[in-house]
Amino acid sequence: MTSYAIVGHLARTDGEFSLNDLPGAGRMDVLCRCVNASLFLSHDLRRDVDCYLVLLGGPKTPKTVLFRGSGIRSLSPDERSAGALVKKALSIPCGSEFREASPGVYVRNGGLERLFPEHAFAVLDEKGADIRTVPAIPEAYLLSDHQNLSDAEEELVKDASRYSVGPACLHADQTITVIANEIDRRKNGWK
Amino acid sequence: MTSYAIVGHLARTDGEFSLNDLPGAGRMDVLCRCVNASLFLSHDLRRDVDCYLVLLGGPKTPKTVLFRGSGIRSLSPDERSAGALVKKALSIPCGSEFREASPGVYVRNGGLERLFPEHAFAVLDEKGADIRTVPAIPEAYLLSDHQNLSDAEEELVKDASRYSVGPACLHADQTITVIANEIDRRKNGWK
Repeated sequence: MTSYAIVGHLARTDGEFSLNDLPGAGRMDVLCRCVNASLFLSHDLRRDVDCYLVLLGGPKTPKTVLFRGSGIRSLSPDERSAGALVKKALSIPCGSEFREASPGVYVRNGGLERLFPEHAFAVLDEKGADIRTVPAIPEAYLLSDHQNLSDAEEELVKDASRYSVGPACLHADQTITVIANEIDRRKNGWK
Repeated sequence: MTSYAIVGHLARTDGEFSLNDLPGAGRMDVLCRCVNASLFLSHDLRRDVDCYLVLLGGPKTPKTVLFRGSGIRSLSPDERSAGALVKKALSIPCGSEFREASPGVYVRNGGLERLFPEHAFAVLDEKGADIRTVPAIPEAYLLSDHQNLSDAEEELVKDASRYSVGPACLHADQTITVIANEIDRRKNGWK
């Protein structure tokens, strides 16, 4: 079981955005690509993955949308497809517990302060330990969107382990792809 | 210098498709994601990368669109952005030599039969050698979209080296991301 959480600092928390302009919805395109990087294999889905989108861009209170691989249906690998499921999740009444908006897609109120203590998240960080060299790699990963974690967020996660996937600074979805490859290799006895 | 070529078996060769339905344009979404995986770093572009899209889906003769990292401007990492540049390239008159449609984006007539002999392409193949274990990794990679290479294409590439990026069968854009990570590591002395 692997979990990813991506902090969307500007990502809208209502469903009033256009699927024709996902970047304009607080860079929702970044989060949609992370959903797809987390969940897709070629002609298959990773059923043992949860992907949390932490939406902090308002206008409403922060919300968290969960894509749970074990239950997902009707997801295609284009950005609009994930965007449509996020939009639907943000359009239903939202409470303090996860509520299913469509198969495998859930939404609740609350941001990183709530989610972070619920999992043993490692933080992706260019200065972290090389993920390839770590004897036992984590089961939960926290990533940021196109912005760095804020000072308050850094304070919240300051005791977490930190890992890097390589010498180049990648997009969050690319980072997830490299992590998933490392996990695949270890599970299957590849070097 | 690294080159990627992706075969789009159904991808349209005219510009008469909607950016609101890239999957409906012969899975142009797959190719757009490959452009972005090839070229993007976080807040930067890989200037030493060429990405060729081989469009075979008609209605016109096969065309090849080249995204050259050294010249690209006005590319954002969402799928629509790459899609808009492909659409523009397919909308200009096209000859037998590459013609620039927008900065860093070129188009010419011709498909894989013409492109393949022009580079020392290695083929991505689940049964190929593990890319991590290869002493000197290739500079040019051929990938297929959501369909496998056809029998005729396999015959064309039958003498090429074959490499795998891991035990799981990934999307073409994910495969490119893993290759780029391996190249980054080797260039920077990471294990």
